[in-house]
Amino acid sequence: MPGEFDFIEAYLSERQTLRQDVQLALGDDCAIVCPPQNARIALSTDTLVGGSHFLLSAPPEWVAHKALASNLSDLAAMGARPAWMSLALTLPELDESWLRPFFDAFFALADDYGIQLIGGDTTKGPLSISLTVQGFVPQDTALLRSGAQVGDRIYVTGKLGDRKAGLDVILDPSLRSKPFASELEKRHFLSTPRVDFAQSLLGIASAAIDISDGLLADLQHILSRSQVGARIDVSQLPYSNEMAAFVGNQVTARQYALTSGEEYELCFTVPVQYASYVERELAGETELHCIGQIAPQGELVLHDAGHAVDWALSGYDHFKASK
Amino acid sequence: MPGEFDFIEAYLSERQTLRQDVQLALGDDCAIVCPPQNARIALSTDTLVGGSHFLLSAPPEWVAHKALASNLSDLAAMGARPAWMSLALTLPELDESWLRPFFDAFFALADDYGIQLIGGDTTKGPLSISLTVQGFVPQDTALLRSGAQVGDRIYVTGKLGDRKAGLDVILDPSLRSKPFASELEKRHFLSTPRVDFAQSLLGIASAAIDISDGLLADLQHILSRSQVGARIDVSQLPYSNEMAAFVGNQVTARQYALTSGEEYELCFTVPVQYASYVERELAGETELHCIGQIAPQGELVLHDAGHAVDWALSGYDHFKASK
Repeated sequence: MPGEFDFIEAYLSERQTLRQDVQLALGDDCAIVCPPQNARIALSTDTLVGGSHFLLSAPPEWVAHKALASNLSDLAAMGARPAWMSLALTLPELDESWLRPFFDAFFALADDYGIQLIGGDTTKGPLSISLTVQGFVPQDTALLRSGAQVGDRIYVTGKLGDRKAGLDVILDPSLRSKPFASELEKRHFLSTPRVDFAQSLLGIASAAIDISDGLLADLQHILSRSQVGARIDVSQLPYSNEMAAFVGNQVTARQYALTSGEEYELCFTVPVQYASYVERELAGETELHCIGQIAPQGELVLHDAGHAVDWALSGYDHFKASK
Repeated sequence: MPGEFDFIEAYLSERQTLRQDVQLALGDDCAIVCPPQNARIALSTDTLVGGSHFLLSAPPEWVAHKALASNLSDLAAMGARPAWMSLALTLPELDESWLRPFFDAFFALADDYGIQLIGGDTTKGPLSISLTVQGFVPQDTALLRSGAQVGDRIYVTGKLGDRKAGLDVILDPSLRSKPFASELEKRHFLSTPRVDFAQSLLGIASAAIDISDGLLADLQHILSRSQVGARIDVSQLPYSNEMAAFVGNQVTARQYALTSGEEYELCFTVPVQYASYVERELAGETELHCIGQIAPQGELVLHDAGHAVDWALSGYDHFKASK
């Protein structure tokens, strides 16, 4: 679709903040970039398929935000500073009334994080947005999933569960009459990736992941890669008053906090000796909650301030609650 | 599609050649790679949409080859050495009988070029294959589209036109009875990107591009970025005996050579003082043909050994033959 690409290229060329380390962006066979000396490059790819990851009727500015935020969140999970990205955009047609708000929101968010679009491909087909983002981590300090040790404290940023409640509204419009339904629908798309906060975890956190599949599912990735278990106190799970009012009871609110995906908050582990530093120095600007501790491998316990809970939470690979 | 991703990740982990500069590949939020000191990174993204860029009935091993070759060809066009790639794969279903030959061919070609898959995303939806490839170019020696000067000679590698003839067969099965139809259909998918040869052009060629849209259309990109024109001698266009037999006459064969896309041969320009070096030293291992010269801006002439030709070749943006 040459016409479409021309439009997009012309539109892009006037919209972006330009980085010093980009020698050549759009317009040749490849982009050329100049990484800093001794940097490690972190790279992640995420695809959103129209009709699957978002309804085709979703506002394009929300879709753009979600596509970029999900990728930035992967960089945040490694403690990487965003730098460059390439966009593979498949469109059923040239619809400027969709593309303009899409790109406006896309570049507004990109500028907030200092990331430049350097390449991509535009093709004709079913709507799909695939981004590959890159960023820098200093040598040997990236936040991995694999460093958690028994005894480490487990923290999460922000509040969890709004995105699952928002998805309920999207999938069942009859829920729009429930409290805060419109606000939760909007929040489903407009998560804030924790890029800046993640920088302060470098050298402090023993493991980290962003919450994209749901806290329990993502924590399982840390446990699996670190070969450890965990004890989670569900009474410490942070969630919003709006989500609690929407779902109507505490147990459901806690279960939403445990299983809500696409939150783009961070879950990270901290050795006990750094815990007071984290709670004293880092919890001021960013909301943090300690939700449990790392336990020996094979143990995954959910408890309510010490009392056993026995919830059937299905749909997550490998998840088996034990007591 | 977690099950699918598990299959793919397990399959991938045992298939790949591992590079020393990949610190972390699949399995965390991001991959981490270590670029060499002072290198520039070249990056390109290409998407193939099922049903649009290839028929859904095409052999998966051919589709894999085409997807990777088109991206490697972009690296070749810059003189870059392939290093890493990420794959955004959207699949309608988990079909191992499709995925196994796809990945077998994909990694066979990847290994030939020393490129490692470091990241990606697998989603459920209409079949689509989007690759982002990266490679290294030494500082300030990348082959660009913008360096052609009046008087430079214009070369192409290999033979041109087979892919268009192959596409004819794909789109119209009644042509299968024509000479070499099956062979040309296969060649449509199985181009060889000129990665190694491109290395020998660094510091020699003034401009380069890979032939993905068709020689005339791609040459136009060089002319536009370099602000020059060109004189092309159609009698010098290289094409295969098989394609000539398939199309049945010389004029059509030459027109196919001018307009056939997805060739993944290189078109490059060389200052006159390097021309004898190119023809003496480089033309031995790789088939090269001089097809014309760079002319002043605004001039684009097709001639047949000095005699005017007046072909209406439609479908290419900006292309207007002048005399």
